[in-house]
Amino acid sequence: MGCVRRSERIVRLTRHLVDHPGTALSLTEMAEHYGVAKSSLSEDLAIIRSVFEQDGNGFLRTQLGANGGILFEVDVSTTREQEIMAEILAQLSDPQRILTGGYMFITDVLSQPQILRNVGKMFAKLFAKEEPDVILTVETKGIPLAVITSEYLNIPYVVARRDHNWSEGPSVSTNYVSSFDRRIQSMSLSRRSIVQGARVLILDDFMKAGGTIKGMIALMEEFSATVVGTGVFMATAEPSEKFISSYRSLVTLAHMDEMSGSVVVEPGNYFTERM
Amino acid sequence: MGCVRRSERIVRLTRHLVDHPGTALSLTEMAEHYGVAKSSLSEDLAIIRSVFEQDGNGFLRTQLGANGGILFEVDVSTTREQEIMAEILAQLSDPQRILTGGYMFITDVLSQPQILRNVGKMFAKLFAKEEPDVILTVETKGIPLAVITSEYLNIPYVVARRDHNWSEGPSVSTNYVSSFDRRIQSMSLSRRSIVQGARVLILDDFMKAGGTIKGMIALMEEFSATVVGTGVFMATAEPSEKFISSYRSLVTLAHMDEMSGSVVVEPGNYFTERM
Repeated sequence: MGCVRRSERIVRLTRHLVDHPGTALSLTEMAEHYGVAKSSLSEDLAIIRSVFEQDGNGFLRTQLGANGGILFEVDVSTTREQEIMAEILAQLSDPQRILTGGYMFITDVLSQPQILRNVGKMFAKLFAKEEPDVILTVETKGIPLAVITSEYLNIPYVVARRDHNWSEGPSVSTNYVSSFDRRIQSMSLSRRSIVQGARVLILDDFMKAGGTIKGMIALMEEFSATVVGTGVFMATAEPSEKFISSYRSLVTLAHMDEMSGSVVVEPGNYFTERM
Repeated sequence: MGCVRRSERIVRLTRHLVDHPGTALSLTEMAEHYGVAKSSLSEDLAIIRSVFEQDGNGFLRTQLGANGGILFEVDVSTTREQEIMAEILAQLSDPQRILTGGYMFITDVLSQPQILRNVGKMFAKLFAKEEPDVILTVETKGIPLAVITSEYLNIPYVVARRDHNWSEGPSVSTNYVSSFDRRIQSMSLSRRSIVQGARVLILDDFMKAGGTIKGMIALMEEFSATVVGTGVFMATAEPSEKFISSYRSLVTLAHMDEMSGSVVVEPGNYFTERM
């Protein structure tokens, strides 16, 4: 009987923790809610913690203070990262992805819920220790990455617009040079979006020379915010000199040749550099 | 001892199911993986099912066929829906959201991970029975809604572009009249994005007369796809005659007056109409 009750509590606790990453669960409130002693809950949580850590799926952290409690932090085991990467590289290696002009069709990869979820977890794992307050991306294709990582880090995301947008009130703009067409472009962000001193994680889907990301960094200076990390799904190997000094990429586009139909994609510096 | 083993299996199963909505888990494979009898797993799943259903957090379904198994389908209890709605309406009722020109600043609401997650679950619950194959939205602000609902329904999303985009290959375009400026605009979608005969769920953040959504419906005709549902986060009460015949909204913007600074938001027809 005690075993059944424990099993039921463990289902509830596990579901709640996994469904609310980064959100502290108060042990006192839970004990009242379930009508059990805190010591029983502590035993339940010890079982959950040990399974999560054994499987490399996450950590249970103790958060102190008024809003303190137990919170779930996403982890991805190295084995799992390699499986995820193998699947992504297999999909990206398809020569049919080569488009006229030396571009690559990658939208459908990040449109698959399982792949996007895995990529979001990997970025959350990588950048959690930088303790970002907010994620910044620029429209359009970086948005899904920002949204999913925001869920796992439990922090909001904001989207810089490529044109000034009437429906977001007073905003701040900056100019930047995109690698695609070498033209000066502008991006803007609502003044209300980011508070002074915020710790900002920049995410985007694709990076060539890094002009767009440099623009986002410049924009953050206008907000007196601190960029604590930059992550991109795919970065090109060339040019090897980028506009920005440090970034983490999941995939490197090492080579693509439209004439011969060859594509070479490799694991990015996510796997080689240690922060 | 059996109790501890069961507890550990229940943590693993619960985490996996919650983390992979809509993905069938093979009982045979799991039994081999955990080295236990299928009958033990069935007992574990019975406990999980009963807790999920009791709490109104989801269902465990049995999927037949070659890729069959047990899958988790997200549910949201009516009580929880009302709590979620109360929080959203409280945030939206702030008169500081009124912008010049009669627009409303709502971006930050859907940028909060917990709110976006709840909204995604509610749309997933509402439209699961229509068995969509893919979610369609148009850039920019509908994307987060499409991404999060895609996770809970375990189907991909596609994003129509407001301009033709060079990096997505051959595409199909259609014209539409936006309610905002009454100008003829165009939206386009990569030919590879949607297969013929697909069942499409349309999602967007905001709807006035419905011109943009009518454009998405017209676009789907070009793909010979079937629109099986339309959901918007917020719809305005006026004009009461919309360009589209049926849609579901979470929030109705009943009234907004810039001069007096008054905003009236109400629960949308999500709560009043039954499909």
